[in-house]
Amino acid sequence: MQITKFTDLALRVLMYLTQEVSSSPVTINEVAQQFDVPRNHLIKVVTRLNKLNWVIATRGRCGGLKLGIAPENLRLGNVLRELESKNSLINCAEPPCVLSGQCNLKEILDHGLNSFYEEMNKYTLQNIVDQKTQQAVIKLHQRYSA
Amino acid sequence: MQITKFTDLALRVLMYLTQEVSSSPVTINEVAQQFDVPRNHLIKVVTRLNKLNWVIATRGRCGGLKLGIAPENLRLGNVLRELESKNSLINCAEPPCVLSGQCNLKEILDHGLNSFYEEMNKYTLQNIVDQKTQQAVIKLHQRYSA
Repeated sequence: MQITKFTDLALRVLMYLTQEVSSSPVTINEVAQQFDVPRNHLIKVVTRLNKLNWVIATRGRCGGLKLGIAPENLRLGNVLRELESKNSLINCAEPPCVLSGQCNLKEILDHGLNSFYEEMNKYTLQNIVDQKTQQAVIKLHQRYSA
Repeated sequence: MQITKFTDLALRVLMYLTQEVSSSPVTINEVAQQFDVPRNHLIKVVTRLNKLNWVIATRGRCGGLKLGIAPENLRLGNVLRELESKNSLINCAEPPCVLSGQCNLKEILDHGLNSFYEEMNKYTLQNIVDQKTQQAVIKLHQRYSA
């Protein structure tokens, strides 16, 4: 059981942007290079985060990516619930289960997934990063910008 | 976020075997046909369940598969924890994350996963099946044995 690569990258992007790097803007190219991911894949993730108003992207010479929400207001459970495309831990239809609709497994697992999201909502993006993260990002950004 | 196909099939097998079908034994071939899964794949799942003493397989003319544990004693959280091969919701090493070890995400998600297993331990295999499941399995077994 793992979160999707899409959500994983989205969380990495959000963490990277949580640090205030005032010296120069953080670009798509920088993030793609730092996390060693294809630019096209990253653009899909950023587009989604932008639609959710969690990331703001500005164009132009001084353009770049910024958080669109205060990190203490973005709850981890909500991020996961929004980005995880599968909203159930099992799929009774794939492969089709002969007991589909005849057992309580899906209902119990759905309840478990909701409890998990509720538990994760006790943490915000601010709780995910700390001083170590901040220092790491500042160094990475300086090295990239140099 | 979904459980693996392996765990999914293991749960289907356990549910199928929870019903007492005294008329004739349930065989690997029957289960493979009922759930429309390759026999080889099913054998891997049953071998694992057998090693855990959750399923007993006997050979011979009257041999077959049976639960090796009372369904009210098998807790769902323990089943998931045992069978899910990935014991963390993220993998900081794949693709390698430049912030690996510099943030709290893994620790928080690990805590969330543990909470999920604890919540799921409130339910046993007995809670997953009900009268509807029992009737469905009895019908399926009768149709197969006819």
